[in-house]
Amino acid sequence: MSSNPSPAAACGARAALAARHEQVRAHTLALAAPLSPEDQCVQSMPDASPAKWHLAHTSWFFETVVLAPHVPGYRLFDARWAHLFNSYYESLGSRHPRPQRGLLTRPSLVEVHAYRAHVDEGVQALLASADEACWRAVEPLIELGLQHEQQHQELLLTDILHLFSCSPLLPAYGAGEAPALRLVPPALRWVEGAEGVVEIGHEGSGFAFDNETPRHRAWLQPYRIADRLVTCGEYAAFIADGGYRTPSLWLSDGWALVQAQHWNAPLYWIAPGDPRAPSAQWQVFGLQGLRPLDAAAPVVHLSFYEAAAYAQWAGARLPTEAEWEAAAARPGLRELHGHAWQWTRSSYDPYPGYRPWAGALGEYNGKFMVGQVVLRGSSLATPPGHARDSYRNFFPPAARWQFSGLRLAKDGE
Amino acid sequence: MSSNPSPAAACGARAALAARHEQVRAHTLALAAPLSPEDQCVQSMPDASPAKWHLAHTSWFFETVVLAPHVPGYRLFDARWAHLFNSYYESLGSRHPRPQRGLLTRPSLVEVHAYRAHVDEGVQALLASADEACWRAVEPLIELGLQHEQQHQELLLTDILHLFSCSPLLPAYGAGEAPALRLVPPALRWVEGAEGVVEIGHEGSGFAFDNETPRHRAWLQPYRIADRLVTCGEYAAFIADGGYRTPSLWLSDGWALVQAQHWNAPLYWIAPGDPRAPSAQWQVFGLQGLRPLDAAAPVVHLSFYEAAAYAQWAGARLPTEAEWEAAAARPGLRELHGHAWQWTRSSYDPYPGYRPWAGALGEYNGKFMVGQVVLRGSSLATPPGHARDSYRNFFPPAARWQFSGLRLAKDGE
Amino acid sequence: MSSNPSPAAACGARAALAARHEQVRAHTLALAAPLSPEDQCVQSMPDASPAKWHLAHTSWFFETVVLAPHVPGYRLFDARWAHLFNSYYESLGSRHPRPQRGLLTRPSLVEVHAYRAHVDEGVQALLASADEACWRAVEPLIELGLQHEQQHQELLLTDILHLFSCSPLLPAYGAGEAPALRLVPPALRWVEGAEGVVEIGHEGSGFAFDNETPRHRAWLQPYRIADRLVTCGEYAAFIADGGYRTPSLWLSDGWALVQAQHWNAPLYWIAPGDPRAPSAQWQVFGLQGLRPLDAAAPVVHLSFYEAAAYAQWAGARLPTEAEWEAAAARPGLRELHGHAWQWTRSSYDPYPGYRPWAGALGEYNGKFMVGQVVLRGSSLATPPGHARDSYRNFFPPAARWQFSGLRLAKDGE
Amino acid sequence: MSSNPSPAAACGARAALAARHEQVRAHTLALAAPLSPEDQCVQSMPDASPAKWHLAHTSWFFETVVLAPHVPGYRLFDARWAHLFNSYYESLGSRHPRPQRGLLTRPSLVEVHAYRAHVDEGVQALLASADEACWRAVEPLIELGLQHEQQHQELLLTDILHLFSCSPLLPAYGAGEAPALRLVPPALRWVEGAEGVVEIGHEGSGFAFDNETPRHRAWLQPYRIADRLVTCGEYAAFIADGGYRTPSLWLSDGWALVQAQHWNAPLYWIAPGDPRAPSAQWQVFGLQGLRPLDAAAPVVHLSFYEAAAYAQWAGARLPTEAEWEAAAARPGLRELHGHAWQWTRSSYDPYPGYRPWAGALGEYNGKFMVGQVVLRGSSLATPPGHARDSYRNFFPPAARWQFSGLRLAKDGE
Repeated sequence: MSSNPSPAAACGARAALAARHEQVRAHTLALAAPLSPEDQCVQSMPDASPAKWHLAHTSWFFETVVLAPHVPGYRLFDARWAHLFNSYYESLGSRHPRPQRGLLTRPSLVEVHAYRAHVDEGVQALLASADEACWRAVEPLIELGLQHEQQHQELLLTDILHLFSCSPLLPAYGAGEAPALRLVPPALRWVEGAEGVVEIGHEGSGFAFDNETPRHRAWLQPYRIADRLVTCGEYAAFIADGGYRTPSLWLSDGWALVQAQHWNAPLYWIAPGDPRAPSAQWQVFGLQGLRPLDAAAPVVHLSFYEAAAYAQWAGARLPTEAEWEAAAARPGLRELHGHAWQWTRSSYDPYPGYRPWAGALGEYNGKFMVGQVVLRGSSLATPPGHARDSYRNFFPPAARWQFSGLRLAKDGE
Repeated sequence: MSSNPSPAAACGARAALAARHEQVRAHTLALAAPLSPEDQCVQSMPDASPAKWHLAHTSWFFETVVLAPHVPGYRLFDARWAHLFNSYYESLGSRHPRPQRGLLTRPSLVEVHAYRAHVDEGVQALLASADEACWRAVEPLIELGLQHEQQHQELLLTDILHLFSCSPLLPAYGAGEAPALRLVPPALRWVEGAEGVVEIGHEGSGFAFDNETPRHRAWLQPYRIADRLVTCGEYAAFIADGGYRTPSLWLSDGWALVQAQHWNAPLYWIAPGDPRAPSAQWQVFGLQGLRPLDAAAPVVHLSFYEAAAYAQWAGARLPTEAEWEAAAARPGLRELHGHAWQWTRSSYDPYPGYRPWAGALGEYNGKFMVGQVVLRGSSLATPPGHARDSYRNFFPPAARWQFSGLRLAKDGE
Repeated sequence: MSSNPSPAAACGARAALAARHEQVRAHTLALAAPLSPEDQCVQSMPDASPAKWHLAHTSWFFETVVLAPHVPGYRLFDARWAHLFNSYYESLGSRHPRPQRGLLTRPSLVEVHAYRAHVDEGVQALLASADEACWRAVEPLIELGLQHEQQHQELLLTDILHLFSCSPLLPAYGAGEAPALRLVPPALRWVEGAEGVVEIGHEGSGFAFDNETPRHRAWLQPYRIADRLVTCGEYAAFIADGGYRTPSLWLSDGWALVQAQHWNAPLYWIAPGDPRAPSAQWQVFGLQGLRPLDAAAPVVHLSFYEAAAYAQWAGARLPTEAEWEAAAARPGLRELHGHAWQWTRSSYDPYPGYRPWAGALGEYNGKFMVGQVVLRGSSLATPPGHARDSYRNFFPPAARWQFSGLRLAKDGE
Repeated sequence: MSSNPSPAAACGARAALAARHEQVRAHTLALAAPLSPEDQCVQSMPDASPAKWHLAHTSWFFETVVLAPHVPGYRLFDARWAHLFNSYYESLGSRHPRPQRGLLTRPSLVEVHAYRAHVDEGVQALLASADEACWRAVEPLIELGLQHEQQHQELLLTDILHLFSCSPLLPAYGAGEAPALRLVPPALRWVEGAEGVVEIGHEGSGFAFDNETPRHRAWLQPYRIADRLVTCGEYAAFIADGGYRTPSLWLSDGWALVQAQHWNAPLYWIAPGDPRAPSAQWQVFGLQGLRPLDAAAPVVHLSFYEAAAYAQWAGARLPTEAEWEAAAARPGLRELHGHAWQWTRSSYDPYPGYRPWAGALGEYNGKFMVGQVVLRGSSLATPPGHARDSYRNFFPPAARWQFSGLRLAKDGE
């Protein structure tokens, strides 16, 4: 997250960052705009957060990381909110319990909007007035704040989709135009990867999270990787072939979940005959509401367990994250970004030589490095400009409310 | 719930009922008026419901019980809402799970207000146009709807208080004037009740719930009953004397709860030194926000277990509901109504000869007659005109979010 | 639990009590005799206790209540066992958590047998040597210890039956002779009870638990009561008629349990087609193992909810405990004792004027007086000489592992 | 698990395998010998199994994998036991729920011993009579059965230790001689590992589990690794320095567990002042009972979270499994085997090119490859001859009842 520009570049860099800050912050509000105050307040499960909470938390992040340490005499907008909108930073004081974020009817949405405006003014003023030393200190922090905000932009969408899915009325987040249904998936091509040393991890001067570093060498065995994602139509064939009733396809924990939760399709798929969507075919609930299944679209809302079971059924496997990143850098893979986060067969372990950022920011990624699985790429909900090939997204293997799908891989010869 | 007035009386009765209907329905909206759409949408625990849900459910009750069966050709405001706003009537179709009432951000508060207006117009039109047979049929149902609405008026307040208590900000429902603190409780007088047969249960032609009937005879042993409620100051002495650390004072289930939940005071009491209210004395959170303990006010927000433990500590016991009702009818007891629901030592069993109402309304009370304890009187949150000496309120023994306190009793000689 | 015999009578009374003590204690061992050390060690659910624990706890009771306070210089068999075998007496020190009784593989069964012998010798020696004052003090305590032991004799059987029911092998506790199956239940006669004052509660100088006292007056409305218990055949007709699928028959909590636990028959009934007992008819698992349903036998292993639902289906209700006791004293009811505990429609509240025993023994009954329902009569597992018409057994309404059935009642005219 | 010896070698191989089979099977019984039938029947938590279940399950494994498919006309000892003693093989039929293994008081220990004898005779007879083709088929299966049995030998010890730790009496499994307490841990030396390609995974013709294969290349960065394990004394210093109260040392899930479970020391450490072991110093419960902490002994009974937090506190980290295995092959590391399983910083992912065994045995390892962490080495409870440097043990990161400790590592330069 560091950079070291020349003075001249820094001047343009300031203006660029100020503009980008304004744009990113405005985009968050635009994403929330279709939602009523009630929609933005409620929490549908402990994993998800209310939209209003996302709006406030991202502002708290700027206030806490940028303004309070770097604006002399800065006064907190409301000192009690540090407790309300701290997400998980142990070193930044106490925090409101995550499962109770939806109980915060106060502050109101109007007050949270005022909070955003207050913090935004502070950041812009700081950018306009910072001396060189201050600029060097705050520039990477503001950039981090924006990257952080973009992560919450995606979560805002996944979380509101989950909330709406809990309503018998199945409201649509966005009206949108229904894309034409496609029955035939694009042809799939297997791309070869050779044995040998590759380098993976973030490279260059652009922004990256600490978990993408250091760039390092890894040894790959020969492998093949699909040039596109698995489609809804292909996944429907897995279901029709008894995929959810065949234990030999599943990891042990996954099979236990299938039985305990009565999973029989991806999250948000509504089966033919369900009273909410009586029809002779699968319906899929999404940001545009309930729609018939698009057989050619990449399947999303899969857990890792489902992705791995599908791959097993298809006579393939999931790629490791090193395979994915190495392939993304060379062969012409399609649908790398903007469609679906892609489960890999790599647990979320630290890279060799990994060092968390200093101070409270060291909690950003490092402390979650166990029990989670890496996803690569980016989804339809990832904001523009946020995706990178070295990006390491991660979720527990049972998580399904993200836009998570898969790309197949196989051992090479 | 039946009545049989003369035709002349009926005419005035219609106008009176129409006026009363308008007044009661308006009062519900007035109670919700201080709350934002967000405040009215959120559910803080499975036992409590959102204010918006109360607004909608009470309208659903009128629509389902009065309008749909008695207005020819009546069209439901929205057929899907029957599922959303049915509370617990198995015979009226499926229903949204109680713990998920807070997920209903849609319909919006505005839509629910429109629903109320629609239903109110329907009821008023019915009252204006009903022929004699129809009037005889709907009058008791409308009266029941109003009584039902009044019950939810009290719940709306207890539920919003619980929600606000979950916020670190401890917002106040109503500004109100802080009453002067009183240090000295009123003197307590023991009132005698003689051995013999008494009659209890609802009597006369006014409205009563089915669980208050039939009026019947019971045999009482000699007893004494306090002419006022236990005060906060008295209860604070119980705490100071180690009441919450002395198992011999408690029923077995109560003691288990004290330990599991770390109870050490009534719900909403905040101990000296708590970061939310640093002070050298007890603070109490209520509808007017956080205030210092008023030693002379009746203690509320007790579970049955706490009420019984206090009575044991005080060398007394709780009155049975028959003792309470018999005493209310004769001696000059104070604070019978308008302060606190009073836990009795009577489980909520059916009266001898009890018959539930016919049809779906038979689910109103009868199916809850096990595992609950009777409370008598009425509280500061009970709407005007709703209280009766024969009223049998009931809650599980662990419930504390109601305005529930106690009156002491003893065996006579 | 007090008595006051003349000196001469006391002498014979000592010998009688010594003989009875020997007989009761031996009977417990006889009940455990068919069980292996493993059978006696394991706990199948928190409500049930291992047989070895019953053997030890009843001895702990004699040691703690009789020997330690009344034998000068008595040394505990093992001081650490007070913690292990205290059941629920808060005033007698700490105790091993109830759900972990099955983890006590040590002390071994052999050691527990030695404990029993040690305590028995102590009690017999005390009976032989006590002076008059001591005798007056210990006689009621020894009698209480024997009554307590008899209660655990019944629990030992209900608990081992539950354990065996958890095994796919369905082992039989006792070989026994299979009684001939009866297809026709005995005729049922309705017995009348008149309106007026009755006296209920324990009377006379014999033993009674504190919860049966004081004898007191109660007012009954006219009622009718069945002269025999409901049979398995009758209950099977309720099942066949959709009893477990008809919510209007059920109390609210009961219906919730039916759905959550998928109840569709009494506990231990195995449906036609179940792989454990393939057959075209109901099988019932009992102390003699798996047997075809005996249509004429009283139904047992019902929860209160099931008993009440059956009564509703049959156009009747459960009797109150006052009705039951008054009827037992006068009309010629059959099957009062020795077949099934009979759920009443009375919550387990204290009698008017009830006073718990002094000291630790006050915890015996009083602290459980909320949230439970009274059962009257006695069951096939109740030891000889232990039953009384005034006996108040009690269990939570969901309990099904006792030998609990029902007798019908109706309102009179 | 395959091997391909010459005919001559095979003859000696048969005798050797028969002898080894006899020895391994006898060793299991020897481990159980100090335990009573009750000790061997009870299950103290879902993760642990009763000793009797281990005895039966390992026999079921031989019966199912070796005898039934390869002995013509083989009759199962008891057909119902396949259900009772199947552990987790979906492809081998239904199975008794894992948390209820302790409810199986039947079959008795005596019957399980007879089962073992029956199966052992069958295996020995098969070894004596198999023709060449049969020998080639069964030899690897018998070897697998023995390796499997050895795994359960270790579990038998960890599970009985957990059971005994639940008893307030803290019984000792083995009398043993108390080793002299050592106050000074051995000096620690850091061993260097160079950057470059290494080969890891099983090599050669000896037995290995499928998860150790295939042998493959991996790229290592420079690193250092401690030549001995972390000691109890060192770990006590971590505790004394507030290790369990410092969130910055912990992974997020670990810190949540520390708070929820009130962890403040390794499992089985009893703090000074605990009523079970009043003393001014730490006591540790182990197979020899309760003993004072041995400061120089390797610390065991750590979760992965605790191991990682300790390493963080010590300014180090855990080694990856590739680092561990590469170092084990070259430098002179001490305490590789026979003291403690050593948590690595590697999640339990499949090796590149991993192929599970065919058929039901494919469930042996592969289906657990998510959400678990790799441990290397072997412990004091690992049976002789069972340890290998390529061995990949795995447990969930919260598991503490194994003999699990740690060895430190650091990045090199």
